[in-house]
Amino acid sequence: MERIYLDNNATTLVDPAVREAMDPFYCHMYGNPNSLHSFGIEVRPYLHRAMEQLYRGIEADDEDDIIINSCATEGNNTVIMGMYFSLLKETRKKRIVTTQLEHPSIREACRFLEAQGVKVTYLAPNRDGLITAEMVAEVVSDKTALVSVMWANNETGLIQPMKEISDVCRERGVYLHTDAVQTIGKVKVSVKEVPVDFLTFSAHKFHGPKGVGGLYLRKGVVLPPLLHGGEQMGGHRAGTVDVAGMVAMGKAMELAVSALEYENREVRRLRDKLEDALLQHKDVMVVGDRNLRTPNTVYVSIRGVEGEAMIWDLNQHGIAASTGSACASESLEASPILTAIGADRELAHTGVRLSLSRFTTETEIDFTIGVIDKAIVRLRQLSTSY
Amino acid sequence: MERIYLDNNATTLVDPAVREAMDPFYCHMYGNPNSLHSFGIEVRPYLHRAMEQLYRGIEADDEDDIIINSCATEGNNTVIMGMYFSLLKETRKKRIVTTQLEHPSIREACRFLEAQGVKVTYLAPNRDGLITAEMVAEVVSDKTALVSVMWANNETGLIQPMKEISDVCRERGVYLHTDAVQTIGKVKVSVKEVPVDFLTFSAHKFHGPKGVGGLYLRKGVVLPPLLHGGEQMGGHRAGTVDVAGMVAMGKAMELAVSALEYENREVRRLRDKLEDALLQHKDVMVVGDRNLRTPNTVYVSIRGVEGEAMIWDLNQHGIAASTGSACASESLEASPILTAIGADRELAHTGVRLSLSRFTTETEIDFTIGVIDKAIVRLRQLSTSY
Repeated sequence: MERIYLDNNATTLVDPAVREAMDPFYCHMYGNPNSLHSFGIEVRPYLHRAMEQLYRGIEADDEDDIIINSCATEGNNTVIMGMYFSLLKETRKKRIVTTQLEHPSIREACRFLEAQGVKVTYLAPNRDGLITAEMVAEVVSDKTALVSVMWANNETGLIQPMKEISDVCRERGVYLHTDAVQTIGKVKVSVKEVPVDFLTFSAHKFHGPKGVGGLYLRKGVVLPPLLHGGEQMGGHRAGTVDVAGMVAMGKAMELAVSALEYENREVRRLRDKLEDALLQHKDVMVVGDRNLRTPNTVYVSIRGVEGEAMIWDLNQHGIAASTGSACASESLEASPILTAIGADRELAHTGVRLSLSRFTTETEIDFTIGVIDKAIVRLRQLSTSY
Repeated sequence: MERIYLDNNATTLVDPAVREAMDPFYCHMYGNPNSLHSFGIEVRPYLHRAMEQLYRGIEADDEDDIIINSCATEGNNTVIMGMYFSLLKETRKKRIVTTQLEHPSIREACRFLEAQGVKVTYLAPNRDGLITAEMVAEVVSDKTALVSVMWANNETGLIQPMKEISDVCRERGVYLHTDAVQTIGKVKVSVKEVPVDFLTFSAHKFHGPKGVGGLYLRKGVVLPPLLHGGEQMGGHRAGTVDVAGMVAMGKAMELAVSALEYENREVRRLRDKLEDALLQHKDVMVVGDRNLRTPNTVYVSIRGVEGEAMIWDLNQHGIAASTGSACASESLEASPILTAIGADRELAHTGVRLSLSRFTTETEIDFTIGVIDKAIVRLRQLSTSY
């Protein structure tokens, strides 16, 4: 059976070109880049090149920093915990403003700090699933150390108005962090145009490998490291650099950015085709205006069809989809995003996320539409509530 | 020119069998193991197998935990910072006991906590470079939250008496952590025979890839996570699991343990051959009794020869060696270990570390001996102080 992967917001296929770029760094150029001998020295140009690809990819300034780390969870924790030790614990700034839409790595880090006496405001999205600049402006005060808003949501693909939010934060002199994990390669990410202070990303969400991520730091910001130790990453993140991973992430960033146009034309067209087919059925709701979403994502609620049941039906036909964030997919809880935007209890258990990539083909989408059409009819017949 | 790699304490060649084991997890089995569909489910048996290889490798009990993370620096920081939030910050136990021999990831994490009010004792080694159980017993009190002692030192290879130290810690009811990064595959590491509470290791020190490590936790110990977020690793370490890295580390552990006998016979023989050749020269000191060292390491001080000069001479002949820890090798400071064991100022700048592996051949050692013999004569002729 052919298999169709429509869970690209959970993780992605490693682009074969990325895979190839990593290859020399296991059994041939395996030196520690901190070493002074040729095995160490020879890998450095590859790291410089990867860094350039990353800087160019997000339009960072030469004087900004990009820290290579192990994943976005690490990046997010680095920002939250760094803020704790630099500001929250030591100064009058005792507050964090974030949202109910964040990834668990922000939410749980914030909850941990609440137990340490930090005050956290979790903004609820409006009915459209959005956090507006006005909402942020309303709660930010001179006691706020940090605002953290996810750029594009992992479940719905909804893109937050980061430029407007960054304007508010700059005007008020408050640090702004954004989790841009779902944004790279889908929407143009420019820290020049949208001047955030901290930005996290993760290679495996844009066709790089798992286990490597990045944290952008605007020049001049002060952030204690999460990993103390050696002088790697200019003292911002200790630990032997994962050379293959860093090279891979640089290459993956370059490819993702150069595929942006394709993503927003072809991937969007295929997503819209799938979405339109879903909307042919009655009592189907897609979350969020499609023009305000990343081009690859549709998050659909089908009344009378449990999300889990649909996922299982799709899986039986070789199609991979998700009920929402993979990080919580084993817990079978109601979707936090559907709950946040005010869906009723039944709807909150019906969410199905289909997320495409530049490797998704039209044949795959056509086949998927056929399978879903039949599954909706079948599962509704079995439903006791529909 | 053939190249000879004698810097295996900095990082290692990835064993081709490990490289091969990783291969399917980039472009084929790339699912997120948390996903409920076949792409996610199919990788799980590989993760279970890797976990078994790791448990078996260090003789952990089924009820203990092994957390997969990104490196030993992360593991070490997880223990130190976890202790801060669980005990040091909240209870009467306000002290850490560690040593002057630790890796920067322990040293700098402890320094960071000193700024937060934690008291840290840094034990100095005796003239033999050892930390004895008596030294630990003398400073541990009911105010001590944690003892952290590196099992084998990265610079000298000296193996600390962990069993005796663990006896002291258990008797006093104090948590014991050991950084076992340099020990895996060189000395038998059994948490059954040496019952520590926390133990860190890193794949790239035993012929696995960079970017993946492990932290052992004895059953029942309480340690807040360093990375908050998803439910991965039983809540101990959030973040999408690096499947390829974890599979690689499992395989690397299995190979390292099965090569222990070879390491202690053949690698030791080659190391001793090299060491004996060095000791033919007058005014040459090797740090530590060779029977108390990991079988692959010799740390030598050659009076009249700057460590940096020797490294450069060796490098010109294609031989990679080090003046000490790669994490500090760019800083050109005097060796902390040589300083700690009381070497004079000149000697502290003459340290050269040669570290072999199971991939080192006799031909390579013979060639290296020839190069060093000539280099000693040449560099001493250039010396103004010798």
